[in-house]
Amino acid sequence: MIRTGSTFAADMYFFPAITGNVLTNAGLRGLIGGPVSDAALPSHDDAESALAELDQLLSQNNKNDLVQYAIATHSVYLCSQETLQRASELAERRNGRLHIHVSETRNEVADCKEANGLYPVEYLDSIDFFQPGTIFAHASWVKKNEIRMMAEHNVTAVHCPSSNMKLACGGTLSFPPYRDAGVDVRIGTDGAASSGNGLNLLHEARLASLVQRHDHWDATLLPAQEIFQIATKGSQDWVAWNLDDIRMRPLGRSNNRHLANLIYNGGECLDVWVNGQALRKDGVTLTLDEKKIIDELDNAVHSYYEGVE
Amino acid sequence: MIRTGSTFAADMYFFPAITGNVLTNAGLRGLIGGPVSDAALPSHDDAESALAELDQLLSQNNKNDLVQYAIATHSVYLCSQETLQRASELAERRNGRLHIHVSETRNEVADCKEANGLYPVEYLDSIDFFQPGTIFAHASWVKKNEIRMMAEHNVTAVHCPSSNMKLACGGTLSFPPYRDAGVDVRIGTDGAASSGNGLNLLHEARLASLVQRHDHWDATLLPAQEIFQIATKGSQDWVAWNLDDIRMRPLGRSNNRHLANLIYNGGECLDVWVNGQALRKDGVTLTLDEKKIIDELDNAVHSYYEGVE
Repeated sequence: MIRTGSTFAADMYFFPAITGNVLTNAGLRGLIGGPVSDAALPSHDDAESALAELDQLLSQNNKNDLVQYAIATHSVYLCSQETLQRASELAERRNGRLHIHVSETRNEVADCKEANGLYPVEYLDSIDFFQPGTIFAHASWVKKNEIRMMAEHNVTAVHCPSSNMKLACGGTLSFPPYRDAGVDVRIGTDGAASSGNGLNLLHEARLASLVQRHDHWDATLLPAQEIFQIATKGSQDWVAWNLDDIRMRPLGRSNNRHLANLIYNGGECLDVWVNGQALRKDGVTLTLDEKKIIDELDNAVHSYYEGVE
Repeated sequence: MIRTGSTFAADMYFFPAITGNVLTNAGLRGLIGGPVSDAALPSHDDAESALAELDQLLSQNNKNDLVQYAIATHSVYLCSQETLQRASELAERRNGRLHIHVSETRNEVADCKEANGLYPVEYLDSIDFFQPGTIFAHASWVKKNEIRMMAEHNVTAVHCPSSNMKLACGGTLSFPPYRDAGVDVRIGTDGAASSGNGLNLLHEARLASLVQRHDHWDATLLPAQEIFQIATKGSQDWVAWNLDDIRMRPLGRSNNRHLANLIYNGGECLDVWVNGQALRKDGVTLTLDEKKIIDELDNAVHSYYEGVE
């Protein structure tokens, strides 16, 4: 993330306390969604134990500006109504944010409709799930009335084009009706396991512009300036790109093509500053040791496959 | 191109002799499609003068292994039947290759059908356009019988996903029926003016895999190994990528994830060798001076916009 100029992660994965420590050591910002699911996870036996840990982690949110914990109810298909409601109550009590995968595939949408008589966003509305700042990942296979519900509840919807395309979900968040309804849309990478894109937000910004134009037959959708604004919305951080890089050419009239060059050609991230701390300078990451991480990862992969046929 | 590990360009643009010289000086391979169009081009007044220059350039093809000239009949909509047939005759006489934009947009397909009663590939077949090694760029809006015609005539079809998506052509080459028909499909960037992607073939390989899966709802389409093979088909050159780069991790079982990491995460091109010559070593391009090119481009852009309101 530092290498490619991202300073904030809205995470939803196992072992939230460890993720929080890693982000803190790296100097990054994060909203660490501790996972909640009825199925056993590598980090938790059940929703009960997950919610108990999150209660504890969320109680510390007021002590840290950069890293906050959130409640990542995995999805409608891995959380019972009771679990979703208990998570929502915890969010309300601890003033925490909810994060959930919503309508990533047609299959989960059809299953929800069959089980509950409602589509996923309608269902979440019907059980009073929404709390302030709820985050929906994917939100691809939705109806217009579901988009209106998201706008009413001030949901942040996260468009993850690489993941949706790589996994062949068929659909990906349809930007124009979201824009028209006034939903807060952001750009996300999804996890490395799904998108295989090295968590590179520039890749996602480029692809969001391209896939929205492709799907909607509209070359005016998401020009570089607009997708850059969406990709950096709310950022309080400072990132410097190498303007001497040949990819930043041509400059265009009044040197105004920087954003288009950055989005469509890619760029080299030189400096990253978060909250007054330099995380990267002159193309070198300062807070993490890339070589050490690579060695540790190589060793872990080697151990994992040792003895595997 | 050298910076991102491409060693061959199938070009179709103005001023073929200059392009040929630049590629030769850079040490790259190329098939330089001198442009042929009935409309006046910056480089030629009419098809007559373009064909005359190409006759001359093509006569030198046997003197050069790396850079060859070809005949880039722009398209069905910018070339009359007579021009297309004269170009085809020149290709036959000089043993040169034809290169043409085909069915990039629905509009040109509808116009061709209205004017000729035939779709573009059918029309080209009806006027005996095809010569050995004909190259079709885009070939997006085609019928299955047109794909079969391409297979019969041993056409090379070039899939340019960034350009098609950025320009919102709606369609892009549909890989499965091409594969099933046995058409030789390659990956192309289209020009920088259309795709804005810095002529980065890795970007195109990644996007081809993603957009084919997206369009066809099939996550088994174009895995990394297959798209890498397509992107490098026929290459006689040697390119080295930085395997110490953190983007090349994880290694996976038996260190077999290199291609997936390269395609989906991107990579740093260290060395490029073409025909026994090193064009790039240890991340530094040797045959072109990037700094000088940037300065010249900046000056040219400055001059172009000087006095423009």
